Amino acid sequence: MTELIKKAKQAKQLTTILSQKTEKQKNEALFQMAQQLLAETDFIMTENKKDLDNGKENGLSDGLLDRLTLNEPRIYDMAEGLKQVASLPNPIGQEIDTFTRPNGLNIRKVRVPLGVIGMIYEARPNVTVDASSLCLKAGNAVLLRGSSSAIHSNKAIIEVLHRALEKTSIPKESLQLIEDTSRETVTKLFTLNEYVDVLIPRGGAGLIQSVVKNATIPVLETGVGNCHVYIDETAKLDMALSISINSKTQRPSVCNAAETILVHEKWADSHLSTLINALEEKNVLIFGEDDLINSFPSVQKATEEDWANEYLDLKVALKVVPSVDEAISHIAKYGTYHSEAIISETPFNVERFLNTVDAASVYHNASTRFTDGFEFGFGAEIGISTQKLHARGPMGLEALTSTKYLVEGTGQIKE
Amino acid sequence: MTELIKKAKQAKQLTTILSQKTEKQKNEALFQMAQQLLAETDFIMTENKKDLDNGKENGLSDGLLDRLTLNEPRIYDMAEGLKQVASLPNPIGQEIDTFTRPNGLNIRKVRVPLGVIGMIYEARPNVTVDASSLCLKAGNAVLLRGSSSAIHSNKAIIEVLHRALEKTSIPKESLQLIEDTSRETVTKLFTLNEYVDVLIPRGGAGLIQSVVKNATIPVLETGVGNCHVYIDETAKLDMALSISINSKTQRPSVCNAAETILVHEKWADSHLSTLINALEEKNVLIFGEDDLINSFPSVQKATEEDWANEYLDLKVALKVVPSVDEAISHIAKYGTYHSEAIISETPFNVERFLNTVDAASVYHNASTRFTDGFEFGFGAEIGISTQKLHARGPMGLEALTSTKYLVEGTGQIKE
Repeated sequence: MTELIKKAKQAKQLTTILSQKTEKQKNEALFQMAQQLLAETDFIMTENKKDLDNGKENGLSDGLLDRLTLNEPRIYDMAEGLKQVASLPNPIGQEIDTFTRPNGLNIRKVRVPLGVIGMIYEARPNVTVDASSLCLKAGNAVLLRGSSSAIHSNKAIIEVLHRALEKTSIPKESLQLIEDTSRETVTKLFTLNEYVDVLIPRGGAGLIQSVVKNATIPVLETGVGNCHVYIDETAKLDMALSISINSKTQRPSVCNAAETILVHEKWADSHLSTLINALEEKNVLIFGEDDLINSFPSVQKATEEDWANEYLDLKVALKVVPSVDEAISHIAKYGTYHSEAIISETPFNVERFLNTVDAASVYHNASTRFTDGFEFGFGAEIGISTQKLHARGPMGLEALTSTKYLVEGTGQIKE
Repeated sequence: MTELIKKAKQAKQLTTILSQKTEKQKNEALFQMAQQLLAETDFIMTENKKDLDNGKENGLSDGLLDRLTLNEPRIYDMAEGLKQVASLPNPIGQEIDTFTRPNGLNIRKVRVPLGVIGMIYEARPNVTVDASSLCLKAGNAVLLRGSSSAIHSNKAIIEVLHRALEKTSIPKESLQLIEDTSRETVTKLFTLNEYVDVLIPRGGAGLIQSVVKNATIPVLETGVGNCHVYIDETAKLDMALSISINSKTQRPSVCNAAETILVHEKWADSHLSTLINALEEKNVLIFGEDDLINSFPSVQKATEEDWANEYLDLKVALKVVPSVDEAISHIAKYGTYHSEAIISETPFNVERFLNTVDAASVYHNASTRFTDGFEFGFGAEIGISTQKLHARGPMGLEALTSTKYLVEGTGQIKE
């Protein structure tokens, strides 16, 4: 706890200094960080091996062990990521708006850092580097709280990044790892309003809900995606198949993968068996209602839970609906405001879907898998916001900033 | 509790319909509401009298009774406010950004309503009308939870507004008053994430902190202002006096009034007694340190609390500082990120102050009293945000909106 308070206080004290750093100073730091990561690849891998050994001993799944693994290509990618963030325009100081009032007051709205960001994440040590680079470029200090299962890797990475920062004008305390991964300490972090401006949880639904529920600090809620692909009556067969398959199977473990496919009954009449065959060829297990099971015995019985589930796996719920409005209602009931797609050649239905579906990203004739900061051209991503305040959808550097009004007068007083 | 859940559910069910209402439909509703308020002025005043009688019986202060009072001119002003909101541009559907990716995906970022807004406020029945009008114009449903001391007034106003909406295409359930003002019910409202998108508390520090502490729904934090006026070495005497007096005394009970005046020691050498006389002439009670008291015996002893206090009264803390940097440090320590002013003719100091003071609005040579949606030209104000997420400073219609991405393709899938 003392560690947390000490580091949070240090971070807060740095916010003014960090807000004044120039683009050049921040980019120099990012390049030094990249260079140091490459120079100390062996050290990072040695420390990472301790986490992997512990993980195996504790019976972590192969998937989790894979996420935890740092090897040469992955460390190289992290270094490249740092250089990419250096190449992005500096958001701080940007004038977003400027206007003069009738009384002569000149008002400028300018972009400023958020201040201190608390990142809470799971066993992906690359987040330590990604979050550090984005927070730094946006002029923020960051408190990193990763998972205990990645503690050796995270400590090693932060040591290396600190050695890099020591060669630059950015104080190393602007990136700090909370080494105490106890539940009490992270819960305390959730309510450190005095020192921390924003919390960003990255991980599964359990982690995110725990932050939302316990935090008094504002939270940027990222991620859970129960995404739908709706195949309308007039959808082209090839496109409907390729988008459904891509949305479901291109990377099933991520939040922008589809979890339910809705099919218009008339399209289903001609093409449902083709769609089901195509999904099953990709080893997708399909869940549906009795009607569907009667025609396709390989389909599993869907419960209420299946419509709400984020499988993150080669599983999909499938439902035949009588109209675009039924599809929209289904999405309104079960969706998580993330990414929703319609495949259709009927402009009226497309308009209706785009306008009335409430989600961060709504697609027409494209895969839900494009909801991503890189795919949107932001050059980086700190997460995908599924809330409506501050930032919605893929969050790049701008989401890590706030604004302030600079008001210049010549002695104006209020009448 | 059943009332709350029922109304919240109704509100949520209306969000899609409300998001599709045209500017014309919304403005017609606002005009009807204005007309109905004027037509039923007597009814509202009769009901208001019940609250005033109860208030007197319960020993409410004159200030509170004044805030609670509705009379003809005040009801007329509320009606005028509705018409003013009708005259503001419709934010919904605005295209904020549009771009095409190399793969041909066309991405539009458009403004959409937040959804359901929970307003929690104290005994100012005019907030019932203000909040209703702004939420409606921005396409939102609103759940209004006012104070029990204004319950008859609020119920009357909502009845009248509902009678107006019945003549329009806007469902009356888009504006709903939570009549059960018990603590359990409001606490339940704080965690109704399923139905409510945002909470906006308006009132004193106690109310706001209670919402921030107990809510799991995102909060737009408004209000507490421990604002400073810093008089630099080169400040012009007349300007320093008029801005100090205006910031402190023009309306001491509001959040953008100054609570502490910081004075550069060199300016103090020549002008401190003039400043103190001017403040005392306006019946301002001054709190300061021993040095100040030695020279000015009318000054009261300031405790640590005085530097942090939002007096909201004819009281001010006053401190002599050796430099602009000391003023900036003092503000960093005690400020509430609201409104801070420097009076100076030294460009270097002005730049330093504007750039490094962390607040929603930072002023040069102008009164802090201008931090206000009307003064900034937004035409309306739902409150003044002192947090850094989503909206900072005076919040107009835009702060009551979110965005979504509409992505249109021709069959694109992710490689």
